[in-house]
Amino acid sequence: MKFCFELVKKEANTQARLGRLKTPHGEVKTPVFMPVGTQATVKSLTPEDLKDIGAEMVLANTYHLYLRPGVDIIKDLGGLHCFMNWEMPLLTDSGGFQIYSLGELSKIGEEGFTFKSPFDGSEHFLSPEDVMDIQEKLGADIIMTLDECTSYPASYDYTLNSLELTTRWAGRCKQAKSREDQALFGIIQGGMFPELRRRSAEQIVGIGFDGYGIGGLSVGETKSMMWEMLESTLPFLPEDQPRYLMGLGKPEDLVEAVSRGVDMFDCVLPTRNARNGSLFTSEGKVVIKNSEYTRDGAPLDPNCECYTCRNYTRAYLRHLFMAQEILSARLNTIHNLYYYIELIGQIREAIGEDRLPQFQEELMEANVGA
Amino acid sequence: MKFCFELVKKEANTQARLGRLKTPHGEVKTPVFMPVGTQATVKSLTPEDLKDIGAEMVLANTYHLYLRPGVDIIKDLGGLHCFMNWEMPLLTDSGGFQIYSLGELSKIGEEGFTFKSPFDGSEHFLSPEDVMDIQEKLGADIIMTLDECTSYPASYDYTLNSLELTTRWAGRCKQAKSREDQALFGIIQGGMFPELRRRSAEQIVGIGFDGYGIGGLSVGETKSMMWEMLESTLPFLPEDQPRYLMGLGKPEDLVEAVSRGVDMFDCVLPTRNARNGSLFTSEGKVVIKNSEYTRDGAPLDPNCECYTCRNYTRAYLRHLFMAQEILSARLNTIHNLYYYIELIGQIREAIGEDRLPQFQEELMEANVGA
Repeated sequence: MKFCFELVKKEANTQARLGRLKTPHGEVKTPVFMPVGTQATVKSLTPEDLKDIGAEMVLANTYHLYLRPGVDIIKDLGGLHCFMNWEMPLLTDSGGFQIYSLGELSKIGEEGFTFKSPFDGSEHFLSPEDVMDIQEKLGADIIMTLDECTSYPASYDYTLNSLELTTRWAGRCKQAKSREDQALFGIIQGGMFPELRRRSAEQIVGIGFDGYGIGGLSVGETKSMMWEMLESTLPFLPEDQPRYLMGLGKPEDLVEAVSRGVDMFDCVLPTRNARNGSLFTSEGKVVIKNSEYTRDGAPLDPNCECYTCRNYTRAYLRHLFMAQEILSARLNTIHNLYYYIELIGQIREAIGEDRLPQFQEELMEANVGA
Repeated sequence: MKFCFELVKKEANTQARLGRLKTPHGEVKTPVFMPVGTQATVKSLTPEDLKDIGAEMVLANTYHLYLRPGVDIIKDLGGLHCFMNWEMPLLTDSGGFQIYSLGELSKIGEEGFTFKSPFDGSEHFLSPEDVMDIQEKLGADIIMTLDECTSYPASYDYTLNSLELTTRWAGRCKQAKSREDQALFGIIQGGMFPELRRRSAEQIVGIGFDGYGIGGLSVGETKSMMWEMLESTLPFLPEDQPRYLMGLGKPEDLVEAVSRGVDMFDCVLPTRNARNGSLFTSEGKVVIKNSEYTRDGAPLDPNCECYTCRNYTRAYLRHLFMAQEILSARLNTIHNLYYYIELIGQIREAIGEDRLPQFQEELMEANVGA
């Protein structure tokens, strides 16, 4: 099966949409939340855990896997699906966000980017063509073009030059792509300038991709600025193709973005917070190390049906966290991901019933003071 | 169901035995290997993982749980089985081995032992009666008397005085015990003196317990000395009661001990080694970080049916280990425990068919050079 996106329904009150991503590794309902499996594993979980939670699609990181264990190894072992034992849809990012995260440790030029390995200090150069080659070797269902994620704040001129470079790289990526069974998404940049967001969107859409990532958001700007930029981008993307807001976000951000027309999300928040003992519940945030949970025999979230909530008390979860037990990371991750996957399922349901604004209101109320 | 032990069969060529432990939480075939769940969790695994592996009984540590989270908390939450969501048989040790491990940080007297909490430096005193009270609150199926594990080397006089103290403590433990649904095991000491081993065994058996732990071995003595001490102890234990060799050992040690008449084992080796990437296989030890496994697409152990070997390559396991991923600990632990549980199952089978010596020979051959 080749990749395709089917727009199923538009919500009556907002820009929200229901859709279906069809990939060689199965179908995914949108809006979708993708757990992050940076190093070819969603930290602490097996693929079976992920399926139990209801995850349908996972993201992995090109940059990390290129450095360790190396992409040729993964290719020789049958590709990333096989390597990590995940037979459902996969997306790899391009490494663009890692260039941004590396800051001073990376250098961008017309041809690509240079960076030093944090493992052995060795110097590496990757061009857009290299990034395509790497992602073709990994073999995810959806791959991303190489982009420059503009820092915040950035001047108008810097942002303009940067988005133009991202456009040229996107064109080279499309040119270099050779596998027919992978979908390629372009990435929109344009910093915090509505005009440049539009410009980037028009250029990237002009090249033409299977879907569109919206990058360069949640990099330090205010929430209202972020929503303004999203609103300055989405109208210029084709309605019949998927839109992927990269790296976001909190539960309330997901609803906000969906209501503006976003279909796909990934974020480390549920998994990273889980390992730090910060847990999402229907009654607000729970910081499991707090002494109030020492003797608490209730489940973490009385309204949650996840494995953790069905089998363990807050007191036990607190104990595992305080004792720095490995099982703490796992039980917390199961819960937080379940919360996100359930949330996105409820969002889909609300879209189906044309009551997303009411759902958003209920969610905000439940999280008051959280 | 109250506790009882049923001797099912004696092997024709050795002292090995098949038996059944009946406990309020179910029946366990002996010889049995108990995974160690020090802090109310077998590190990185859920109870479901343990059941999948075939584990039937788990050990937890009184000393650790007394300090954290505290035994009253566990009692109020329904006891240890409930707290850790493990509805099968449980054994708690008494803390005697921890007194030994603490060395200078603990002080022993007639009344009990004093030690400092490694968490907050607070001073604690525990008597044999306290240790019974704690273990009754935890509620394991089998509990242990408080003992002094004699250091190695120790003089004859020290060892004699020490075993006599252990005997007095054992008597006080039996006296203090009030719950009818828990079995209490006495612990034999006697250091490296055959005569004192016999003396301890006769004294402890004289008091009378539901089973007998053999302590104070594998504390730095040679292997041959260890086997000599075991052989100096076992003849003085009642044949119709279970014998538990505490804290041992390597796969080959298990067979050696079983052939001398031991029924029960616990050891951190499979779980601790797993986290360090040292893995037991049918073809000998595998150190998974070794570069030879970088591109190795074979399962860890081609003869193993565990979840890890059925689903992952050595290359992936090496990658997870090098990347310090949490899943590494888990997949390795599943494999190593499966190896131990399978091994003890094969030992039972060999006893059933009166071919334990042949089985031992085959095991030694498979592990040559490992």
